[in-house]
Amino acid sequence: MGFKPVVPESSPFTLQNIPFGVVSTQQDPSPRCATAIGEHAVDLRTLSKAGFFNDTEVTEALSQLIETLRQANLNVFAALPSKTRTAVREQLISALKDGSLPEESALKLSEVQSHLPVNIPDYTDFFCSLEHCQNCAPMSGGKIPENFFNSPSAYNGRASSVIPSPSLVRRPRGVYWKPGNKEAEYGVSKLVDFELEMGYVVSKPVPYGETMKVDDAPEHIFGFVLLNDWSSRDIQIHEMPPLGPFNSKSFGTTISPWIITLDALDAFRTAPKHKTNPLEHLRFADFNRGTFDIKLAVHLERDGQRHKLCTSNLSYLYWTPFQQLTHHASANCGIRTGDTMGTGTISGDGVGEDGKKYELGCLFEATQHATKPLKFEGGVEVGYLRDGDSVVLSAWCEDASGNQVLGFGECRGQLVGPNAPIKNVTNY
Amino acid sequence: MGFKPVVPESSPFTLQNIPFGVVSTQQDPSPRCATAIGEHAVDLRTLSKAGFFNDTEVTEALSQLIETLRQANLNVFAALPSKTRTAVREQLISALKDGSLPEESALKLSEVQSHLPVNIPDYTDFFCSLEHCQNCAPMSGGKIPENFFNSPSAYNGRASSVIPSPSLVRRPRGVYWKPGNKEAEYGVSKLVDFELEMGYVVSKPVPYGETMKVDDAPEHIFGFVLLNDWSSRDIQIHEMPPLGPFNSKSFGTTISPWIITLDALDAFRTAPKHKTNPLEHLRFADFNRGTFDIKLAVHLERDGQRHKLCTSNLSYLYWTPFQQLTHHASANCGIRTGDTMGTGTISGDGVGEDGKKYELGCLFEATQHATKPLKFEGGVEVGYLRDGDSVVLSAWCEDASGNQVLGFGECRGQLVGPNAPIKNVTNY
Repeated sequence: MGFKPVVPESSPFTLQNIPFGVVSTQQDPSPRCATAIGEHAVDLRTLSKAGFFNDTEVTEALSQLIETLRQANLNVFAALPSKTRTAVREQLISALKDGSLPEESALKLSEVQSHLPVNIPDYTDFFCSLEHCQNCAPMSGGKIPENFFNSPSAYNGRASSVIPSPSLVRRPRGVYWKPGNKEAEYGVSKLVDFELEMGYVVSKPVPYGETMKVDDAPEHIFGFVLLNDWSSRDIQIHEMPPLGPFNSKSFGTTISPWIITLDALDAFRTAPKHKTNPLEHLRFADFNRGTFDIKLAVHLERDGQRHKLCTSNLSYLYWTPFQQLTHHASANCGIRTGDTMGTGTISGDGVGEDGKKYELGCLFEATQHATKPLKFEGGVEVGYLRDGDSVVLSAWCEDASGNQVLGFGECRGQLVGPNAPIKNVTNY
Repeated sequence: MGFKPVVPESSPFTLQNIPFGVVSTQQDPSPRCATAIGEHAVDLRTLSKAGFFNDTEVTEALSQLIETLRQANLNVFAALPSKTRTAVREQLISALKDGSLPEESALKLSEVQSHLPVNIPDYTDFFCSLEHCQNCAPMSGGKIPENFFNSPSAYNGRASSVIPSPSLVRRPRGVYWKPGNKEAEYGVSKLVDFELEMGYVVSKPVPYGETMKVDDAPEHIFGFVLLNDWSSRDIQIHEMPPLGPFNSKSFGTTISPWIITLDALDAFRTAPKHKTNPLEHLRFADFNRGTFDIKLAVHLERDGQRHKLCTSNLSYLYWTPFQQLTHHASANCGIRTGDTMGTGTISGDGVGEDGKKYELGCLFEATQHATKPLKFEGGVEVGYLRDGDSVVLSAWCEDASGNQVLGFGECRGQLVGPNAPIKNVTNY
């Protein structure tokens, strides 16, 4: 008898999903590649050693495939041709259906530790939601930057502070303007925010000195994760002009640990919300498959209560992930396998029955820089984050009837005090 | 008979230097650690295998030291305690004096290929020269940014495009404003510049979530290199507000391949040019040893002629490298061994006999955005860079009599056309 998974209705990890991640267990703390199904992780190293992949139809040496699935990160697997990765996924789906995987490959998800799924050579964060940009204009000079409509805006981020969910993030110290005057101070940041983003991980690289075509972008993306771009608004307001965000963003970036592949997301390709008339290098052929219909939500956990902060959708972005990556590569920088891109905060313009916008992907927007706190039952008011607050991002894709087909799992992080003990899982 | 090096008077690689790098040869293309002396590289892997380091006084397991010197980069060596690295350096100096190194460890410098000395987990570029900032004000809103005097300004750079000298850099394509109006275009950058910087490489890491003290900064720096931060001014002017430089900087960053250690530079510690009264985390104890007296020069090679473009000095920086690194770590981002920091363009205010400033570290400054070309013998005028131009940075330290004690070797890069073939040495 093999492993026959049970997939509870609410599970993000369905047979249509088959995400890739890296896990370890208490019994065997060495990180190795895995997939997730229902309430289990499936250890791909165990499968590889048991000869499971020996008959996979591959476009390169089989030994190479088998070796990749024994690694401590997914970089080598992600660099394989997409055909090979697709074949691996299909073989897993088929064996999970048949119940033919060896029992010892199944680990309880509640008992595994997730690691960063890839070693991240370079991390970049975009700024591509028109609604976010409009709502944040007060922070960047009062108006939409003139370049916004010409090409996807981005800054290089800090790879060292990307950590997997669940994570503890220390409230940072930094330099900011004292309230009310133009005197600077070094101290504990008072205005800590989250940002609702997705991240995507590069598969096929672009060599240094070369560029790529926007219609080839799907070949260069391994898959998507959730990403919380923790932000210190007081440090950010001080440091941003003219070089952009730096220390205000580098005290923590939490990502969900399971990469949802482009194969799994293919059924949810959709048209972007915004019609644009882009410059030559960003024009793509098939508008109706230009992005993905991925639903998003953010919850705050405070004092044992859970409050919904916002919802959104990846397809709201003005510049799609495919356009982002293409523009990134357009000046010859080189893109490496494992490079991770944040989409930028994803906001929308949805308005609730009370006339208020609810698709606002950070507290700067949702509370107008804490001048209009969010109000919840029991007199709870939320401005910026307090020590002890947990922020939980979630994402899922639905069928035409509104039923969840697959999910991303949680991207969970807790803000703790500047001197609180923390222990996170890093790859270095 | 062992290897007895000859050090020509003009050589940067003296017995007081003993830099560290990574080289390969045609006969053995595997990269390995090396030092340089006179006109030779000394293969540290060969020495390690010959048992040369077996008696080194080390502060950790000897096997660990021996293993590090057989690596394809210097990251593991750089992470060793500074005492151990100092002991290795002193042992090398002593054996080079004695002529007791095995002949087979000596390779002709002219026959080795230099590689990136370290794998660079994260690359950061600072903006800390007051004179550069003043001269560049036209590009960033017409005045000195308000935050400049509070803390070192910086942006995250792109590690994938850091390449060793000598390098070929393709003129990039990108998005810029068409001359004279506010319409954007995607095309070949017309305004390509160099920037005279130094770089420094991290030794002892700062764990994610922790910070460091400015007086401990020397413990965290392995050594210095030269760094040319190639810049596209038309792309930069378009993309910079509000997120800072991105594609305008990521088409190439050339570094000199030999890391000059803090041990070698210790005799050249000096007071910074600018007296400042910094915030708490940037105040350091010994002002007179706050930075380094490192002399800098830039030459342009065009049409077979060599023109001196500028000179400068590391000590001119308003914020020293020690303050830069401390501020970088102050918000918990974590700093890893091998992380490389660009100091930012190093300009001064020196004025020549003709009344003109000559310590201007980029063409944007020196030519006032190409409105006042530099003029050289034979009617040569230099505005921005042309395809085929080579930019050569050099640096050296002098004794009290003005004699060179040690040098950094060349940081050389050639700008080539957007479709010219290039081949550079990368670590990935």
